[in-house]
Amino acid sequence: MKHLLAVDWGTSSLRGALLDNQGRVLEERSLTRGILTVASGEFPAVFESCFGAWMSPGTLCLISGMAGSQQGWLEAPYCACPAGFDDLATKLVWLEPGRIAIVPGLSVEKDGVPDVMRGEETQVFGALQLLGLDNARLVLPGTHSKWVTVAHRRVTDFSTWMTGEFYALLRQHSILARSLPRIDEAHDPASDAGAFEQGVAHALHGKGLLHTAFSTRTLSLFKRMASDVLPSYLSGLVIGEELKSQSLQRGDSVVVMGAEALTARYMSKP
Amino acid sequence: MKHLLAVDWGTSSLRGALLDNQGRVLEERSLTRGILTVASGEFPAVFESCFGAWMSPGTLCLISGMAGSQQGWLEAPYCACPAGFDDLATKLVWLEPGRIAIVPGLSVEKDGVPDVMRGEETQVFGALQLLGLDNARLVLPGTHSKWVTVAHRRVTDFSTWMTGEFYALLRQHSILARSLPRIDEAHDPASDAGAFEQGVAHALHGKGLLHTAFSTRTLSLFKRMASDVLPSYLSGLVIGEELKSQSLQRGDSVVVMGAEALTARYMSKP
Repeated sequence: MKHLLAVDWGTSSLRGALLDNQGRVLEERSLTRGILTVASGEFPAVFESCFGAWMSPGTLCLISGMAGSQQGWLEAPYCACPAGFDDLATKLVWLEPGRIAIVPGLSVEKDGVPDVMRGEETQVFGALQLLGLDNARLVLPGTHSKWVTVAHRRVTDFSTWMTGEFYALLRQHSILARSLPRIDEAHDPASDAGAFEQGVAHALHGKGLLHTAFSTRTLSLFKRMASDVLPSYLSGLVIGEELKSQSLQRGDSVVVMGAEALTARYMSKP
Repeated sequence: MKHLLAVDWGTSSLRGALLDNQGRVLEERSLTRGILTVASGEFPAVFESCFGAWMSPGTLCLISGMAGSQQGWLEAPYCACPAGFDDLATKLVWLEPGRIAIVPGLSVEKDGVPDVMRGEETQVFGALQLLGLDNARLVLPGTHSKWVTVAHRRVTDFSTWMTGEFYALLRQHSILARSLPRIDEAHDPASDAGAFEQGVAHALHGKGLLHTAFSTRTLSLFKRMASDVLPSYLSGLVIGEELKSQSLQRGDSVVVMGAEALTARYMSKP
């Protein structure tokens, strides 16, 4: 019976899990060998050194993520939405026929503007399988959060939100950084739940991040909020802005996927 | 008859104009001696070296801008809105009685969140005087754009929009920068009117900058827009986002104040 080596090769990290034919995880590895650290042409060698020992005869390896991008191992053209699991399977790009393949990402286009994902599509179909859902709305929070709509087990729509990146830009490079603790001294950005939820609430009622972000400075200037909780407040502002834009109705069900430290911030109820 | 030395001492620049008693400009100077370049305690010496020669007996000097902030020459507490010209005059902070004063900035508070300006209030009252307006809506575009509402010659409300700063953050430090020309090779961000207006239009119809900003990357990825016009497109996205948030109605009159290169972008009609 075959084993499956499931690899998520992203921009900044490389993760793999060896699964048996029941889907049970036998071994896992996570390395800081994202595609940005791999020179063109060195992907086979990096793969071999990281996972060669797991590639016994009969093992199938599927690689999702940025390894399939123009800057990756081999480009796997995006699969256009609506797209289901079978569409991905049909469009696998084989590095070694029957042995190692790259999973294509998804693209969608609205009003002449494309959007893309690579890696999240694999997580989405995994979640649908685990949760037994045919229809769902999902969010995968992160540097670039993805909001995904699934109907009849096909991804019909999705959008990218640069929430985590905006937070980092404002935190590190903007004038707001002057009001905030130095990054090496800073608490975890969501460590103060009160300030975080105040940020979410202000974003939900505000007129947009270009304006609300400035409140991080003025609340500090008027000594209304302590410097050490301002990162939590700012995190609340950007996540609140993302949530506001989804036009969620009370009672809407959304599947939140990701590491708990991040998903917890999307579950709070201000 | 007195002369007036009108000084705008901001974060990054120091500008002064010597006016006669008819309001005619006799001389002007502009220096890169913003308050960030001036050590605490050295403001009098910098002022003397830049403008001492213009301070003949009987000359009155009024200084607006960040020179009145906590990091400036002497703090001039904000004047709370609604505030008129007379309120500013009453709250001048005198460095030398009858000779040199700092003009206070304005503050406004909504839902427990303050907003502030320093320097723009002086420009606003000047514009009202020049235009003969008692009621107006004004915008002063920039790193931090200010939208100002005036009723019966008093500033009743205003808000800050970090538009120029968001542009710079995205242009220089975000993942989008990888799709854009290197900054030292780049054209002026508004040099391509078509791409700029496409950005404005996309922002006006979009769901928010956290999402629309990503289109800068995907349009490049799908070769829908040439790299050298992407900065214009990105500029359109952030300015369009600012404009969208103002809920302007067709026919609304807005006074746009500032350097023409910037105000022209607010006057385009996509």
